[in-house]
Amino acid sequence: MTVLILTCEADVTADMVVTHLHASATPVVRLDPADLTEGAALSGEYVHGAFRGHLSAGGRLVSIGGLRSVWVRRPGTAATRAAQPSDWLTEEASQALYGMLRSSGARWMNHPDAARRARHKPWQLRVAQRSGLPVPATLITTFPQAAREFSERYPDLVVKPVSGAHPQDPPRAVPTSRVAPDADFAAVAFGPTLLQRRIAKRADIRLTVVGERMLAARKAVAVDADPDEVDVRFAALSGPWHPVEVPPRVAEAVRTYVGNAELAYGAFDFAEDADGTWWFLECNQSGQFGFVEAETGQPIARTIAEWLARPALGPDARVDGADGEVA
Amino acid sequence: MTVLILTCEADVTADMVVTHLHASATPVVRLDPADLTEGAALSGEYVHGAFRGHLSAGGRLVSIGGLRSVWVRRPGTAATRAAQPSDWLTEEASQALYGMLRSSGARWMNHPDAARRARHKPWQLRVAQRSGLPVPATLITTFPQAAREFSERYPDLVVKPVSGAHPQDPPRAVPTSRVAPDADFAAVAFGPTLLQRRIAKRADIRLTVVGERMLAARKAVAVDADPDEVDVRFAALSGPWHPVEVPPRVAEAVRTYVGNAELAYGAFDFAEDADGTWWFLECNQSGQFGFVEAETGQPIARTIAEWLARPALGPDARVDGADGEVA
Repeated sequence: MTVLILTCEADVTADMVVTHLHASATPVVRLDPADLTEGAALSGEYVHGAFRGHLSAGGRLVSIGGLRSVWVRRPGTAATRAAQPSDWLTEEASQALYGMLRSSGARWMNHPDAARRARHKPWQLRVAQRSGLPVPATLITTFPQAAREFSERYPDLVVKPVSGAHPQDPPRAVPTSRVAPDADFAAVAFGPTLLQRRIAKRADIRLTVVGERMLAARKAVAVDADPDEVDVRFAALSGPWHPVEVPPRVAEAVRTYVGNAELAYGAFDFAEDADGTWWFLECNQSGQFGFVEAETGQPIARTIAEWLARPALGPDARVDGADGEVA
Repeated sequence: MTVLILTCEADVTADMVVTHLHASATPVVRLDPADLTEGAALSGEYVHGAFRGHLSAGGRLVSIGGLRSVWVRRPGTAATRAAQPSDWLTEEASQALYGMLRSSGARWMNHPDAARRARHKPWQLRVAQRSGLPVPATLITTFPQAAREFSERYPDLVVKPVSGAHPQDPPRAVPTSRVAPDADFAAVAFGPTLLQRRIAKRADIRLTVVGERMLAARKAVAVDADPDEVDVRFAALSGPWHPVEVPPRVAEAVRTYVGNAELAYGAFDFAEDADGTWWFLECNQSGQFGFVEAETGQPIARTIAEWLARPALGPDARVDGADGEVA
């Protein structure tokens, strides 16, 4: 059975995983939905109560019932490289491709519904709370007065986007930054603002979850670091990433989180405070892992390859949302 | 507890339901996400392991924990009526609103994830098959040769879009039409095409599901109707809609379908053939019902209002994807 990787052509992270899959002789088909209907093709037939589907990409034909897993890595927008692209063709091609894949018995990393849900930061915060992870006091508001009252209770705050990267092309990460003590908050009325108690951190933690496996890395904050540099992605001074053990209570809470979120992959960011507490900041269901693997030597790509290579639930064993009992 | 209706201002169908909710003295808040952050506002606080959120719209403030249900009717795109609209503001406002609502204990008609999944026609066909509904032989393909072979097996075919309405503004319904006997199919290579065995129908059936309730209506095909007119929405000659009983086997299969699809509302279209068999054509999770109610007198709006007015699961009893056992 075959592993299907949905990603764009220039994806070196996917290449790392493909190398491991080749090493274990696991059949792989790589498909960029952008290549529909030039270079990639699909067909599915619903006859006599049964479904038989096929995908073609890179000169290979694969049965949808023969997929063991689907890795949704960095897929392009459907049919954008077609001879005559249009919003209509994109919609038709996307519905055809994902609609058929949803009928496969394959395991997903991650399932499109779980992925979409997991992007909602307000939802992440609530799931983290309920999973038993420490969450810094947070306010998301369009009420200036609520922001002012919150800043009186928690005078040391950071501000960050509610959603992820700024939707420009290419997307731009918006840094988390410290709120000045005399901030006015009137502008909160014009757009939802996420304010969060700043954790005086001594390290950043990146915890990568692949199936049941957890790989954590720690980057100590430099002793002479500027306390205004709260976002590790933009910090000038910082040490390298080192592997670190996951405290058992955190591991248990993270297991609860990914179980509830139905995620096969998640990249958790924590801030470690002076007491050693790991404070939940976010869980990115499509977070990059190449930089951690490069610095720590942790076998993340290999673990992903192993997860993808596991046997499927069986062809058509489960249609999304249809439990197994339905004939 | 309050019913939240997400819809645009000019929505007479929502008005019908609101009238029934008012008659039963059920509190209602109507919010158009497009009105964020002018006219509508939100705030949510995550402190000490708990979440408290509020929405404000139409001069009313409502607690998110105090919502009994959310009806996703025809919501506008978030923040498009803001003073300075932008893609970024839309993304921030949408994530904030839906991210918080996903943390409520409210029942949804329909839940955004279930709604999104239910729009995939290939998935609908497979769920219908597995639920025991008769599905006309169907092919979705970009392979001209597959289309040719299918048309040899099933010479009398219709063609229809894979996705729903054409994404122009306003969206335009694309009619289902008959395939000419000498069709060439070469153009199939340029976009996924849905071909389906034509059902020689004697009536169209619209079955509206609201919670556990089913309301079916039947419109007989005129005896002198043009056989090329296969799409009831565009038929020149057709009788009125009349209420009709749902055959027990169909009712059971439809119950299975909406259960698997996790839909609280669905508008099923069937074609009734000369043997009286109801052939599944599609299930529109946001299908209009005003025209059926007007012609048949079936109390669809009232049934929706009754469903929305039922008690919630309890404030914060369930966070999406988090099962009830998690403290």
